[in-house]
Amino acid sequence: MTSSFEPAPEVPLTCDAFLGGRLRIWQPAQGYRAGVDPILLAAAVRALPGQSVLELGCGVGTAILALASRIPGARCDALEIQPFYADLARRNAVENGLALNVAVGDVAQPPVEVRSHSYDQVLMNPPYFESRFGTGSADTGRDVALRGPAPMAAWIETAVRRLSPKGELTLIQRIERLPETLAALDSRMGRVQVLPLAARADRAPHLFILKARKGARTPFELCPPLVMHDGARHLQDGDDYRPEIRAVLREGAELSFPH
Amino acid sequence: MTSSFEPAPEVPLTCDAFLGGRLRIWQPAQGYRAGVDPILLAAAVRALPGQSVLELGCGVGTAILALASRIPGARCDALEIQPFYADLARRNAVENGLALNVAVGDVAQPPVEVRSHSYDQVLMNPPYFESRFGTGSADTGRDVALRGPAPMAAWIETAVRRLSPKGELTLIQRIERLPETLAALDSRMGRVQVLPLAARADRAPHLFILKARKGARTPFELCPPLVMHDGARHLQDGDDYRPEIRAVLREGAELSFPH
Repeated sequence: MTSSFEPAPEVPLTCDAFLGGRLRIWQPAQGYRAGVDPILLAAAVRALPGQSVLELGCGVGTAILALASRIPGARCDALEIQPFYADLARRNAVENGLALNVAVGDVAQPPVEVRSHSYDQVLMNPPYFESRFGTGSADTGRDVALRGPAPMAAWIETAVRRLSPKGELTLIQRIERLPETLAALDSRMGRVQVLPLAARADRAPHLFILKARKGARTPFELCPPLVMHDGARHLQDGDDYRPEIRAVLREGAELSFPH
Repeated sequence: MTSSFEPAPEVPLTCDAFLGGRLRIWQPAQGYRAGVDPILLAAAVRALPGQSVLELGCGVGTAILALASRIPGARCDALEIQPFYADLARRNAVENGLALNVAVGDVAQPPVEVRSHSYDQVLMNPPYFESRFGTGSADTGRDVALRGPAPMAAWIETAVRRLSPKGELTLIQRIERLPETLAALDSRMGRVQVLPLAARADRAPHLFILKARKGARTPFELCPPLVMHDGARHLQDGDDYRPEIRAVLREGAELSFPH
């Protein structure tokens, strides 16, 4: 369906249901579109009521709003470089009855309203492709969302600076960028845990969720892959998510890392 | 059993069978002892007959001799910092009827007989603990073998320099050192593949084998974990290695990476 949303009436929007319908998200019909990744990201953040949470590069707000709906009482801020997406994130917060402050700015040079706070939790779903890869996209919004203006190191640097002592970073990213991501984490961060996500039990993981704690010294840990779907191949009709994944996507369950 | 081996007659040795008895390795009864790790490492090297192969830090030669026995016609060199271990590696080569040149020297500053060659394959099982960790060991040989004098970056730098264009690096290491290992690989290496090794299907992997190719540009790949043992726990009697692991350890089979 299209929207009568005012700031950019020429952009067709859709309103999509997440978390079994408890979260409804307006987003552009064309270009980058939120899928399961921001929901998995939000589910992996171990925030407590009363904690402060920052999402870097929130897009239309899917991840931070999923977290806000799971953890009432968390204080949620977000940063988004594209004003149109930031506006949609604010609208999505209002329409879902959730509190969210959205600042507009570059992750590599965050504005003062972000720089002046520290956070118990930072989450992010940085662009999946670097600017130097690929052929570019005709859609500028999608281009920035997928390729991003800032390298991974800049995202992680801003996240680490904004975290309180013992604060936690949670991010989701394509497996191809695991080396770059680990290289960007320096000695300020520890207890790094990587949870690979695989479509099927016999497939190579295509995504990973990484958690790290500021000031911790616990060694790096690679978890067994989390398998998304049952069976060896995709069935045409219906989704075949495994029960714990379905609980995350449909019921807003937390995604616990194995120990 | 103890040996009458001359250079250090006071050191008790054992002679241990690998690859179902086709490889017999003399090694000190006390201190660092070769187990399954060097056999898994050797099995993962995709060397061809006629290719040149270098092992950095060969110890008593278990990995490079396992490779030599699997691939007749490979030209095998090795570097070991401890003369007593290098002597044992030479003895093990002779007693197994395998050709091996062993140079004595530091991986961080390899001697000219290593520096003057380039290799199709470099393999290594760098020390599992850094010097700054742990409390040290009373046994100097074990201490150097486990902790090592050179940081991971120095091992990888020497490996990359010694590789021919399109040459392949294969290494085995504790999972805790995956970030450090990936960080040490620079843009000269590509097609990095990491195969995690897990004791049981539901356990976090404790080791990884990494392969990389000099000059390649293929993105990083994380393979599904290779599970060593069947069942949920160790049974007291007999080993319960899964069939493909048993084939590697007992029959000298190649360890293929999944695609």
